[in-house]
Formats: sequence, structure tokens, C-alpha cells
Amino acid sequence: MHFRFVIRQLGLLLLVLSLAMVFATAWAIYDARSDHSDIAGTAEAVRAFLWSMGIGVAGGAALIAVGRGGGGQLGRREALLLVALSWFVGAGLAAMPFRLWAGFHTISDGQDAAFGSFVNCYFEAMSGLTTTGATVLADIPTIPRALIFWRAFTHWLGGLGIVVLFVAVLPLLGVGGKRLFKVEATGPSTEGVTPRIQETARLLWFIYLGLTALEIVLLRVVDHTLTWFEVITHTFATLATGGFSTMNASAGGFGPGVQWVLILFMLLAGVNFGIYHQIISGKWKPALRNTELRAYLLILLVAAVFVAWNIHGTWYDDTTGASTEHTGLGAVRDAVFQVVSIQTTTGFCTANFDQWNFFAKAILIVLMFIGGCGGSTGGGIKVIRIVVAVKVMLAELERAFRPNVVRPVRIGSTMVDDQQRLGILAYILGIIVLFVIGTLLLMGTESSSEIDSITAMTAAVATLNNIGPGLARVGAVENYAWFSDAGKLVMCVLMAVGRLEIFAIVVIFIPRFWRTH
Amino acid sequence: MHFRFVIRQLGLLLLVLSLAMVFATAWAIYDARSDHSDIAGTAEAVRAFLWSMGIGVAGGAALIAVGRGGGGQLGRREALLLVALSWFVGAGLAAMPFRLWAGFHTISDGQDAAFGSFVNCYFEAMSGLTTTGATVLADIPTIPRALIFWRAFTHWLGGLGIVVLFVAVLPLLGVGGKRLFKVEATGPSTEGVTPRIQETARLLWFIYLGLTALEIVLLRVVDHTLTWFEVITHTFATLATGGFSTMNASAGGFGPGVQWVLILFMLLAGVNFGIYHQIISGKWKPALRNTELRAYLLILLVAAVFVAWNIHGTWYDDTTGASTEHTGLGAVRDAVFQVVSIQTTTGFCTANFDQWNFFAKAILIVLMFIGGCGGSTGGGIKVIRIVVAVKVMLAELERAFRPNVVRPVRIGSTMVDDQQRLGILAYILGIIVLFVIGTLLLMGTESSSEIDSITAMTAAVATLNNIGPGLARVGAVENYAWFSDAGKLVMCVLMAVGRLEIFAIVVIFIPRFWRTH
Repeated sequence: MHFRFVIRQLGLLLLVLSLAMVFATAWAIYDARSDHSDIAGTAEAVRAFLWSMGIGVAGGAALIAVGRGGGGQLGRREALLLVALSWFVGAGLAAMPFRLWAGFHTISDGQDAAFGSFVNCYFEAMSGLTTTGATVLADIPTIPRALIFWRAFTHWLGGLGIVVLFVAVLPLLGVGGKRLFKVEATGPSTEGVTPRIQETARLLWFIYLGLTALEIVLLRVVDHTLTWFEVITHTFATLATGGFSTMNASAGGFGPGVQWVLILFMLLAGVNFGIYHQIISGKWKPALRNTELRAYLLILLVAAVFVAWNIHGTWYDDTTGASTEHTGLGAVRDAVFQVVSIQTTTGFCTANFDQWNFFAKAILIVLMFIGGCGGSTGGGIKVIRIVVAVKVMLAELERAFRPNVVRPVRIGSTMVDDQQRLGILAYILGIIVLFVIGTLLLMGTESSSEIDSITAMTAAVATLNNIGPGLARVGAVENYAWFSDAGKLVMCVLMAVGRLEIFAIVVIFIPRFWRTH
Repeated sequence: MHFRFVIRQLGLLLLVLSLAMVFATAWAIYDARSDHSDIAGTAEAVRAFLWSMGIGVAGGAALIAVGRGGGGQLGRREALLLVALSWFVGAGLAAMPFRLWAGFHTISDGQDAAFGSFVNCYFEAMSGLTTTGATVLADIPTIPRALIFWRAFTHWLGGLGIVVLFVAVLPLLGVGGKRLFKVEATGPSTEGVTPRIQETARLLWFIYLGLTALEIVLLRVVDHTLTWFEVITHTFATLATGGFSTMNASAGGFGPGVQWVLILFMLLAGVNFGIYHQIISGKWKPALRNTELRAYLLILLVAAVFVAWNIHGTWYDDTTGASTEHTGLGAVRDAVFQVVSIQTTTGFCTANFDQWNFFAKAILIVLMFIGGCGGSTGGGIKVIRIVVAVKVMLAELERAFRPNVVRPVRIGSTMVDDQQRLGILAYILGIIVLFVIGTLLLMGTESSSEIDSITAMTAAVATLNNIGPGLARVGAVENYAWFSDAGKLVMCVLMAVGRLEIFAIVVIFIPRFWRTH
């Protein structure tokens, strides 16, 4: 194991994150100087960001110095270790501005005090970078805008993956980059992605940037009363399938037009970015014939129809707290919005779906496990794996009565071989095992008067699959502040494990991983 | 598809079941003539059994007549269809005595009236034949003993499988017998079972009979105050890993000595019967080195230690309703008893474990999914599949950082090839999918004021994995009478699906199964 190399790369990561804080710092300075912001502690946010940048640059430089001289060879194990550590170390630095701000500033009456605890700040940063969107904040508008901007920006940075950013921006990794990308780019299929990894990463990055610009423009066009602050933060949270909002009511604070724009971009963010690559390269036909894309859209359509039919004409609260009977287009919009938001693992809310019928909630829970497409910014098991698993199980059923017929499992024109099928089933079982372990741990860390089984189960799946909200005490209008520190740290691990598709994190707990042969 | 052949075999099944009723009828006549029984309706039980036997013989003869002349060829699809239908048709006949008795007899005050509904009777018969042990009876001693004997006897008949009985008793099946056995004998491994199927089936049958005699004797030796009725019915329920008792307090009504004997025989019933075959053939060493056997005992030991440690010194009710602080050997006995009872999927209870700590309950729920060994009378996923799945998942983890190392998965000296591994993972996923579907269906069939999510989930797993009791409203001192008819029928399907390890039942819903090519 080439530890020095890993250490040097972690140092680079800290430098990049510190650099990213420049934008938040600029925002903090602007707000502190203008009469625009009347939120207590706005001036202290500037100091918090400057200190955080200083710490990040110093720490990064120190790590690079320590790691100097190590060989440039990036083996598979180094790549896995680097990816695993990146998220835990990165979240530590990303949490700094929150915690330092709470230290510099005397929290005033009525202001959310969650950032007074480092575990809370770490949870929020991990939730941001893993594009989960689970929050410890109960009253978001009482926090200075620069911090909320940074929170959304961690989504965006995490979105296509810090590491893809790494690969595109810092070509230092050389040949190792390909291995790194293999770990990072989620999903079993790299169909449509060119082998020249740096070029691809850079192209994906531009697609991401393009979609960001497009959503910002569209949101402003649809509703010109929105502030740039609202438009930019929500765009970050949408394209990363994150889900952090600037309002306590989440997307329920917006009008119908804005909500439809959010639906569109959540939908786009849940698609394999390789598809956009294909489309840009002029390969329209194979892109639109993509099996996973079709399954993804079909699942969303069916789920939305059932949920709309189920909630139509029922009474439930909006996330603003207004209780009304929902009929017509309002019910349809809520249904489509929540189905898309949950399956893409974004986690924006317009309706307090915890009040929905059992049937509609059951559909949402199933969608929580399915997740977005492989190679998207969405989390979850991924549609492609579900498709393969269903095909494998049907093939196994047929084998029971026709043992000599070998029916190959195909995705499009690609054969899925035995090894891949085994890997996919093992992955799904692994997610289920981690979900059970996570639930048990949360039941264990919280007192039985605080947590019920539905809360524990949905908190586990909402963090493991990077969604954000769950049901009951972690529902659409709730937050994660009430968990114990131990429970929050459990969920931090679940978020990282889910985001990195298990292997990169779990592997480092296997003794054999550390052996040299 | 040779329907005539299937119909003829079903006719034979009805004849055999009618024949089995002779014992219950004899018991009914004895009780009606002696002054031994003072339970209302004892005389009517005789009529109920005579009528049931008549219906069974007439129905069986009719089916055999209809099926006459069909070819003797038993294809794989015929075998699957036959097995699937056997349990549904068999449960119909086995339910007759319950329902007819309730028809002939005017239920008196304070007497359990559950058998007044055919769905209840069918549920009880299916629960008996699948060795589940979930009951609709709230007050068992108010029912004539002959019916309770029959109920236990359905366990015993189901125990090693009606179909194994079929293969050993009726050599009519000829060459088709092997195919049938492959569907019926549970578990992926047939290690230690000779290829001469009829001989093996007959030998297994004698082992079963021998263990039955041994338990009857031991129970009487340990406590000579037990009646033959109690000894025989509990022996039937133990060796079949069924769980029907003659007392409302289940095994909690017995003294410590009897409970330890039950623990021993539940443990033995959960072992692959092929192991006993090996031991009888003088192959002690490979039998005791068996991977699955060791894993089974290890899981039981670890679970019992944790549960004992967890419940030691806490207050909870026995199944008799007495609330005491449990310390010392009493707590250990309860822990061992419940752990063995749940993992072997027997379902006897001595403690109201619903009142235990969350941790102890969580262990029981995990054991509910694991189940007994393959080739035992126990249900669940089976230990051998769990062992393979764990090995496959560890191998997959290693593949993430060492893609070129191929580490074969072995069970003992046997290689588990890719096809088997895939089949096992698909099976486990299938059980999980059915568990989720079952839970959703039960939440749907019952009104939300009647059912909570824990009840629905544990009812689904307790029937799917043939255990019997679950938690909350289907807990140790509860019963299944309160479910709607629809809910009960859902659970009848779950019981059959679980007992036949999915494929035999699920396969018949696949259109391709019915196509001729």
C-alpha cells in the first residue's frame, strides 16, 4: 500500500475544497457589507470561512508535504482507500465553516443552534457532500445565507463526485485516474463512456455545468421574483439530487411553475450522464433505446399514476403546514413531485407525505430502494441493478421447470455474464444487510421513547440511499437534529457507504484488504 | 402437460389423507365412549371425522377415475404442479373435520367458535400441513381432543413432507419419484442422500418414526404425569417443527424438564435428516464435520448467549400470564427455548417474548429469516443458503480490490459453482421480495386500526418462513383469528410458498410454465 500517495491526494482534496470556499466567502462578504441581510451572525460568517480556508490550505499543504516522494503508482487498493478517506476527511473540512461560525457568533434568541455541536456540523457536511439532503436544521432562514449557500454548494461538489472533479481538474493522477473513475462513477454500466477517462470526465463536468446554467435560467424565467440565492442553491440541490432547501417548507414554498421546473431537472439528474454524452456525440438512437432509461421512466410513470390516484381527493398538509383537500392538478403535481424527488433520491418535499395513505407511502418506500440510474447523481440500488435482478430471478424460476434451457440475461445488446449477475445480486443483498444493520444500530443508539421502528427503518434507508427525508420522525417536515451523536455518526457512515456503493467503504474493514499479497 | 396424471396423483393424496384420519377417528370414538372427556361436542367429532373420511375417499376415487388412462410419465412441470396443488387440495380435506364439527355441534358458551368459518379451518389445516403452527384458536382446551390430535397430526404428516411419504409408501410413481423428491426435499444440498430415491425416502421415514418414538418415551420418562394426548401431540409438533400445542400457554404450561426435552428434539428436527442417514450408515466423521450443522449450532449458541444475557434479571410474562423477574437458569432456559424454537421455525413459546428488550427481539427476527438446515423439517431461508451467501458476499468484496484473484466458494469439500451461487442469492432475494409483498398485502387487507407495521411484517415472515408466532398482535400469547378472510388467505399462500421453497408455487403463475415448448 502506497500510503504517501494517498496522503498527498488527500492534501490536494483539501486544497480544492478550500478553493471552493472562495465562492461562499465572497457571498459572506457581500452579505456582511450590504444591507441585504439582516440575519444575526452574518459578519461572523466571513471570519468562519476565512479561518476554514486557512485551515484547509494549511492542512492540505501539510499532507502534500508528508506525502511527497511517494511513488506515483495508483493501485486499486490505493484508489479505494483514497475514495473512502476523501469523503470522511472532506466532510470534516466542509463542516468547519458551520462549527466555526457557531463559535464566533453568540446564537441569538429564535436562531437555530444546531451548528453549536461539531457532530451536527459533520452530519450536515456529510449529508451535503454525499448529496443526501438530510438536515439537522429546523429553522433554515435564521442561518446566514453564505452558510446556506455553502451547504448547497457541498451538494453540487459532491454531485458528479469530488473525484470526477478531481480527475477532470487535476490531471496529476495519470494512469491511476481510470481506476479511480471506476470506483467513483456509480452503476455497473459504463456503456457510452469513452475509454479516454480524462476527456470523458471533463465532458461530464461540462454537461453538469451546462445543466446547472440551464436550470438557473429556467427557474428565473418561470418566476422572476425568485432571488439569485434561491435559484442557485436550489439548482445545486436539484442537479446533485441532494435536497437541501433554503426554506423550512422545502420546495413547498414555491409556486407550481417552479415546482414543475424542479421536477424536470430532478428527472434529468437521475439519468445516466453517459446518455447525455451519447446524445452530444450524435448517437440519439441508442441513447433513447437505453434499457435502463426506459425502465426508469416507466417506474416513475407507474408510481406517479398510482400515487396520484391514491392521494386524489384526500386531505393532507403541504410542507407549509396548510391542510387542504387535494384534487385535480394539485394532487397530480404533488404525486409527480414526490415520486420523482424520492426515486431520484433528491428529497425535496412539497407535501407532508407522512400523512398519505399507507399505499402511497409504501410506493415511496419501494422507490427509496430502487433509486436513480447508474452513472447519475442519484443514489439507491440503481435501476439497472433492479432490471438485472428481476431478469435473473425470472430466469431462475424458469430453470426450476426447464433446467436445460439456458436463457442469457441481456441489457440492450449486452450480455450480462454470470460474474456480473452474481455481483449485482450480492450488491442488492449487501444494501439490504446494511439497511437492517443500520436500523438495528439506530434502534440501539436512541432511547425507545425517542424512536419507533418506522422512524429507524426509514432513517436508515433515507441516509444509506442518500435520499434525505423518511417517514414518521424523519418525515417531510421533520429533521435529524434530535438524534444522539452516536446515531448521527452511524448515519454519516451509512451516507458514505451508500454514496460510494458499499465497496470502497466496507472493503477497508476487511483484514485481507491490508495484506500485501 | 399430462393433467390426467396429476389428477390421479391428487386422488391418491386424498385417499392417503382420509386413511390418516382413521387415527383421529379412533381417538374421537374412544373419547366419546369413555367418561374421559367432558368437552362439549366430543360426540359430534366422530361424525365429523367419518364424514370427512367419506368425502376424502369419494373425492379421491373420483379423481383417480378421471385421471385413469393418462400416461405414467412424470415430467418436471407435472411434478411442480402436483406438489403445488397437493398442499392446497390437501389442506382443503384436512380442514373438513374442523368445519364439519362446527356444523354438527352447537357451539356452547365459552367454547372457541373459530371453526365456524371455513377460511379459519383452512388456515388452521394449511398451518398444520406446512408445519407453521400459526393458529386461529384462542382457547384450545375447549375443543374436543380428537380435533386437536388431528391438528397435531397434520404437522406430523406435513413434517417430512406428504410427498416424501408418498414416495416411500406408494411406489407407484416409478421414475418420476426422483423429480418429485428434488422439489420436495428442502435445501440446496442433497449431500449424504443416496441416489436410490425410494430407499432413501423410506429410510428418512424410519428415522422420523424413530425420533418420534424416542421423544414420546423421553417425555413420559421426564414427567410421568403427562397424558398420552399431551405427549403424542407435542411430539408431532416438535419433530415437524410445527408448534401447535394443546394448551393456550403453549410449552409454558410444562415444567423445566419437559421444556429441555422439547429443546433437544426441536434442535434435532432442525438438522438435515441426511446427517442422520450418514450417521446410521456409519459415516460419523463427515456427518459431524458438516459445515451447515456447525454453522447452525454456532448461530444457535451465539444467539442464545446474547438473548440470555439480555433478558437476565428483567421482568416479563410467561405464556401462562405470570409476570416475574427472570434470573438464573429460568432466564437461560427461556432464552435457549425461544432461540431454538424460533430458528428451527417450530414456534412453541414459554415466554411472552414480545415484552423482551428490543435487542432480544431483533435477534429473534433475524433468526426467523435464517431458519433451520436444508433437508430438515424446519422452514426459513435455511442455514446452508446463509453460509453460501455470506461467502459469496465476502468474495465479491475482495473482488473489488483484487479483481484477478478467483477465490472459489466451498461448502466442506464441495465447490459451489456460479449457477448454484446465483440460484441461492436469487432465492434469498425472492424470500425478501415475498416478505415485502406479504407485508404490503396484509397492511392492505386489514383496516389500519387493526394492524400496525410490526404486526404485518412479523405475520408475513412468521407464515412465509413457517414459524407461527411473530410480534405485537401475532405475538407469543396472541393468535391469528382476528385477521380478515382475505388476510388469512394471503397467509395461506405465504405458508405454502415458504414450505415449498417458492419455486413450486410461484412457477405456476408464470405464463411460460404452461406453454408446451
